[in-house]
Amino acid sequence: MLETLKWTDSGVLFIDQTKLPTEEIWVTCSKYEDVADAIRTMIVRGAPAIGVAAAMGIALGARDLDVTCISEFRNGFGQICRLMGETRPTAVNLFWAIRRMQRRFEEVSGRPIPLIKQALIDEALNIYAEDIATNRTMGANGAPLMPEAGGVLTHCNAGALATAGYGTALGVIRAAVEAGKKIHVYADETRPFLQGARLTAWELMKDNIPVTLISDNMAGAMMAQGKIQAVIVGADRIAANGDTANKIGTYSVAILAREHGIPVYIAAPFSTVDLDTPDGSGIPIEQRAATEVTHLGGKQIAPTGVLVENPSFDVTPARYIRAIITERGVATAPFNESLRKLGQTKAATV
Amino acid sequence: MLETLKWTDSGVLFIDQTKLPTEEIWVTCSKYEDVADAIRTMIVRGAPAIGVAAAMGIALGARDLDVTCISEFRNGFGQICRLMGETRPTAVNLFWAIRRMQRRFEEVSGRPIPLIKQALIDEALNIYAEDIATNRTMGANGAPLMPEAGGVLTHCNAGALATAGYGTALGVIRAAVEAGKKIHVYADETRPFLQGARLTAWELMKDNIPVTLISDNMAGAMMAQGKIQAVIVGADRIAANGDTANKIGTYSVAILAREHGIPVYIAAPFSTVDLDTPDGSGIPIEQRAATEVTHLGGKQIAPTGVLVENPSFDVTPARYIRAIITERGVATAPFNESLRKLGQTKAATV
Repeated sequence: MLETLKWTDSGVLFIDQTKLPTEEIWVTCSKYEDVADAIRTMIVRGAPAIGVAAAMGIALGARDLDVTCISEFRNGFGQICRLMGETRPTAVNLFWAIRRMQRRFEEVSGRPIPLIKQALIDEALNIYAEDIATNRTMGANGAPLMPEAGGVLTHCNAGALATAGYGTALGVIRAAVEAGKKIHVYADETRPFLQGARLTAWELMKDNIPVTLISDNMAGAMMAQGKIQAVIVGADRIAANGDTANKIGTYSVAILAREHGIPVYIAAPFSTVDLDTPDGSGIPIEQRAATEVTHLGGKQIAPTGVLVENPSFDVTPARYIRAIITERGVATAPFNESLRKLGQTKAATV
Repeated sequence: MLETLKWTDSGVLFIDQTKLPTEEIWVTCSKYEDVADAIRTMIVRGAPAIGVAAAMGIALGARDLDVTCISEFRNGFGQICRLMGETRPTAVNLFWAIRRMQRRFEEVSGRPIPLIKQALIDEALNIYAEDIATNRTMGANGAPLMPEAGGVLTHCNAGALATAGYGTALGVIRAAVEAGKKIHVYADETRPFLQGARLTAWELMKDNIPVTLISDNMAGAMMAQGKIQAVIVGADRIAANGDTANKIGTYSVAILAREHGIPVYIAAPFSTVDLDTPDGSGIPIEQRAATEVTHLGGKQIAPTGVLVENPSFDVTPARYIRAIITERGVATAPFNESLRKLGQTKAATV
């Protein structure tokens, strides 16, 4: 399996995603502050990957606390969690992972300090392993929906690099390929941040899965030429009715797919489903810096001072979505019912 | 008026469109081979501009022919026209301009060589002047179709930089603004070559027309937010049934527009209409180098060796097009009839 981050005794290791695809450099974070920096500077990115990284960073910081009593430990631990929480203030999985580490700390706080430290390391490793297991189950659930042979379009990077490993949308593609399906991936480059060109193309090539890179505006033409049989993407938040927020451009791809009679699949862990948000209108959309659009790799590509829109996400209404693939099962329309039902079930095992 | 190319005694001058928007550099092509190179390397681009450039390049080459009899002249002239015809395969204006120069040559081939040379220069200058006049008439014809106030999305650059001046799609926008309409232009950046970011944004800012730059995959989201009231683009070739080849991504924009009930307009000189090509399936689509997608400003943004598709154009079926605006009038469905009828009329005068 393609590894993108891991725990070692000397610290947390990350493949530096800001250097991909031209350089494959592993960064060792030997202090928790280094892990926080790696999240902040996007050496590691992707919501599930950020959660795992934060948990490992907290475990690392806790392990190295030079304390003699639990109240000192609690102080130090609180400080580590606070710093980790200040890295990417909008990433939901980050806070979920921090809360889980805090809960584990409270559960074991009566034990001797070395055992508390080991319990926190174990918890971080559990979060890591569970994320991969979730993706594998999602892959098994989604693989039957992929075509036996043909082109599958994806947008942004919902792959091993966005998770602890294997990926969500790309996990489904990996599972389909492992099951013998002949899939050729078309990767939207995904402006402005180019996650498709830099990351999706790279990790699929690493796994020898055929991939063709296109610029975002070629998706329609590829569909018209009959090259695309399915679309699969990840999600940043899924409302109770199935409306799905994902990387900007997903909405356009979904409309193009429907116009060509091509199914659109969402692959995401069930934790992405927000049953408290009735529909997509309640999902806040982050606006990012204009320079992401006007500059590329430090090079200016637009006139100085031009007005820019740069929404990081858009919302694809549920009516464009054929199915939502989770580790708990596959939801189809009407999503209000199917997602609520999945919310009451446990994850299926592979 | 914003000048972008011109004839001088020392050669053909082009504003170097590969250097915009950060540098405004004029390039002098003192030999016809330089003009061909300028077309091939996209120092000058845009179908009408390519036509004008080719005519000027042919006039330049003919002027500098060192020949003593008409049969030598004919040989040299044929060679110049052949080289010019090998620069860009999709733009019908290129071949139209070459044929027009060839026709003029035949008309004057009985004259003394210096007079033939002058007639060819005059013809190129006529093509230049007619292109600007055509754009002004097209603008007058199209301005009433633009909203009184609101957002107009355009793709690629069909502006002064794509023509001898004023522009086709941007000419219609200029005419609408001159008529007092409150238009805010949304410019798709237009990957991979970024004509929207580099050229459209630049020339509209030069003319103080409000413009917001977006990446191509944001068009759908802008439409969903109600920010776009009309779409207007140029064309590289229009088939007899109205199917329109234009910059890659136009097809996607047209589908998105229809999904949101937004009209799509094509603005192009009637010379872009190819009545001999029955429908879009007969239009050849130029594939360009993979490096346009994998590199940006010399910087590699995708893995080494990744497969790439890079069609320069796509074909928008006529059913997505509300109207085709030409200098001879405005064609609407059924386009087979309306375009043929325009083919039999003379240009309206402004």
